[in-house]
Amino acid sequence: MSGGEFDFIERFFKPLAGEGALGLSNDAALYDVPSGRQLILSTDTLVEAVHFLPDDPAETISRKLLRVSLSDCAAMGAVPKAYLLNISRPASFDDLWFASFSTGLALDQARYGVHLLGGDTTSTRGPLVLGLTILGEVAHGRSVSRAGAVAGDDLWVTGTIGDAALGLQALLGELPDPDQFLTGRYRLPQPRVGFPLEDFASSGMDVSDGLIQDAGHLAHESGVALEIDAETVPLSAQARAAGAAWFETCLTGGDDYELLFTASPSQAGLIEEAGKASGIPVTRIGRVTPGRGVRLLDSAYREVKLSRQGWQHF
Amino acid sequence: MSGGEFDFIERFFKPLAGEGALGLSNDAALYDVPSGRQLILSTDTLVEAVHFLPDDPAETISRKLLRVSLSDCAAMGAVPKAYLLNISRPASFDDLWFASFSTGLALDQARYGVHLLGGDTTSTRGPLVLGLTILGEVAHGRSVSRAGAVAGDDLWVTGTIGDAALGLQALLGELPDPDQFLTGRYRLPQPRVGFPLEDFASSGMDVSDGLIQDAGHLAHESGVALEIDAETVPLSAQARAAGAAWFETCLTGGDDYELLFTASPSQAGLIEEAGKASGIPVTRIGRVTPGRGVRLLDSAYREVKLSRQGWQHF
Repeated sequence: MSGGEFDFIERFFKPLAGEGALGLSNDAALYDVPSGRQLILSTDTLVEAVHFLPDDPAETISRKLLRVSLSDCAAMGAVPKAYLLNISRPASFDDLWFASFSTGLALDQARYGVHLLGGDTTSTRGPLVLGLTILGEVAHGRSVSRAGAVAGDDLWVTGTIGDAALGLQALLGELPDPDQFLTGRYRLPQPRVGFPLEDFASSGMDVSDGLIQDAGHLAHESGVALEIDAETVPLSAQARAAGAAWFETCLTGGDDYELLFTASPSQAGLIEEAGKASGIPVTRIGRVTPGRGVRLLDSAYREVKLSRQGWQHF
Repeated sequence: MSGGEFDFIERFFKPLAGEGALGLSNDAALYDVPSGRQLILSTDTLVEAVHFLPDDPAETISRKLLRVSLSDCAAMGAVPKAYLLNISRPASFDDLWFASFSTGLALDQARYGVHLLGGDTTSTRGPLVLGLTILGEVAHGRSVSRAGAVAGDDLWVTGTIGDAALGLQALLGELPDPDQFLTGRYRLPQPRVGFPLEDFASSGMDVSDGLIQDAGHLAHESGVALEIDAETVPLSAQARAAGAAWFETCLTGGDDYELLFTASPSQAGLIEEAGKASGIPVTRIGRVTPGRGVRLLDSAYREVKLSRQGWQHF
C-alpha cells in the first residue's frame, strides 16, 4: 500500500475506528445488533458553501456533521452507536485541515460513545462534500416516529428555538453576537442524546428546517393539526435581546436540533422529570387538534401569519 | 409539505422505498437483523467527472452506484438487503435526469432483491456527488475478509479482468470498441452476488482499483505474498483483441468488480462447482506464499515488472 488515499485514512481515520470496522481495510464493516434491539439508520450530507462556511473551523464542521446525525438518533428515541463517513475532498483542503477535522470527531466520539465503522474517500474538483450515516439502537418496537400524535396531546420542545438561525445571521454580519452564543449554536448543535423520548412521546422529530415547517411535517405524518402558542416558544436570552423583528427568523430559520414531540397530558410529570434528570430544558408550546397544518397563535388565540415557512434544501 | 426537495423525494425515491424506510418521511429508518445473522455495511461515493462522465446515461450511473456496493457485499460473502442514498445535486441535473436515475435503481432493485431504506438530498454548486451505503447480511462469524490467506492457498478470480479499464479508454477514444462490450463493462459492473465466497474462501475482496494493487491489499492484510501467473489471468476475447500493449492496463486499471479470493487447494472442486452453479466463471491465477507483496510471473516463473500499480482515489 502506498500513496495519498491510504495514508490519509491511516493517519486521520484509523484512530477513530472501533469494533466491526476491521481496521478500515476491508470492503465492508460488521455490526452486531443485540437480540431484542432494532437498528435505526440515518444519513446526512453537508456541502461546503451550502451547510457550512468555507472558513468555519474544521473541528466544528466535523462535530456538526456527527451531531446532526446524533440528533436524528435522539429524535427516534435511539441510542447512537457507530457511523460511516463519506468524504469528497477537493485538493484545497489539506492535511492540516483534516487533522483538525479528525480531532473534532475524536472529541465527540468520546462524548457520545460512538465510533467510526467505515467510510469512503474520493477526490472532487468541486466543493467539499461530507456524508455521515449513523447507526443507533432502540428496544424492539419502541422507536418514535412522526406519525402517532393524536388530538388532545400536548406539543413539547427541548432547549431554545432560533439561536442557530440568528447565529448564521450574526456570521453574515446582520446581527451582533457579543458573547458568540448564537454563532456557537449555529456551528455546534447540542443533540439531545439521552432525552428518553421513547418513554413518553406519541410522536417526535428533531427541528432542523425551522420549527414551523418541521411542525408541519409532524402534523402531516400524524394526520393532525398542531397549534403553537407563540409566547411559549422558548427563546434564549440572546435571542430575546435580538428583538421582536427577529422572531420570525427564530421560528423558520432551522438548524436548532432540538426535539419536537407530542405526548398525552398524563405524561407531563414524567416529561418534566426527564428534563430535570437529563439536564435538558423542556417546554410545552402547544397542542394537537383534529384537522391539518400548523397554526401559530398569540396570547388572545389569534393566528399569527408568517411570511415564510422554513428551509428547503433546494 | 411543499417545494422542491419533498416533491423530488416523493416522485423519484418513494417508489423505491421498502420495509423499514417509514415512507422516507422520518429522521431515520429501521432495520431488523434476524437472529444468527450479522450485518455488514459498506459505503461508496461516485463524483461527476471523477467516477463517471457527465454524459454517461443516468440510468447506468445509478445502477453502477448500486452495483459497486453490491460487489462489496459479495466480497464479504454477504447477501445485500437494503441501501441508503445521499445525493448532492447541482441545478444542471434536471428532473428528467433523475427520472432515468430512479428507473435504473428500480431495475436493479428487482434484479438483486434490495430496496431503498433512506437517504438525504442537498443542493450543491459543484459536481453531482452520489453516495450509497449498503446493508447486507451474513451468517454470524462467516463473513470473508482480506485477512486469512495462508501460504499454500490458491489464488482465484471471477470473470475477466481489465474490460472496464479498456472500456474507459474506449470512451476516451484511445481504443476501438466495435461491439461496445468494453464500454458496457465500464458503465455497468456485474457484481458477483450469489457467488458463495463464504463457503470456501480463506480471504477475499473485490477488484475495484486494479488487480495488482488490490492483490497487494489482500497480501498486506493477510501478511503473505501472492504470486500471479500472468498467462492465467482471464481476459475477454475483446481484451485479447486489444493486444498485448494493453495488458498492463488490464492488470492495473480498476473497475473490474470481480472477486479475488484465496482458498485451500482442497476446495478447488467446490469452487469449480460453485462457478458452474452460479454461472460465474472462476479461474485459478496463482498462489499464496510466505513473504510479502505481489509478484507477477511469466510462464518461465520470471517476474514481470509493471510501470504502475493501480488506481488511487486521489
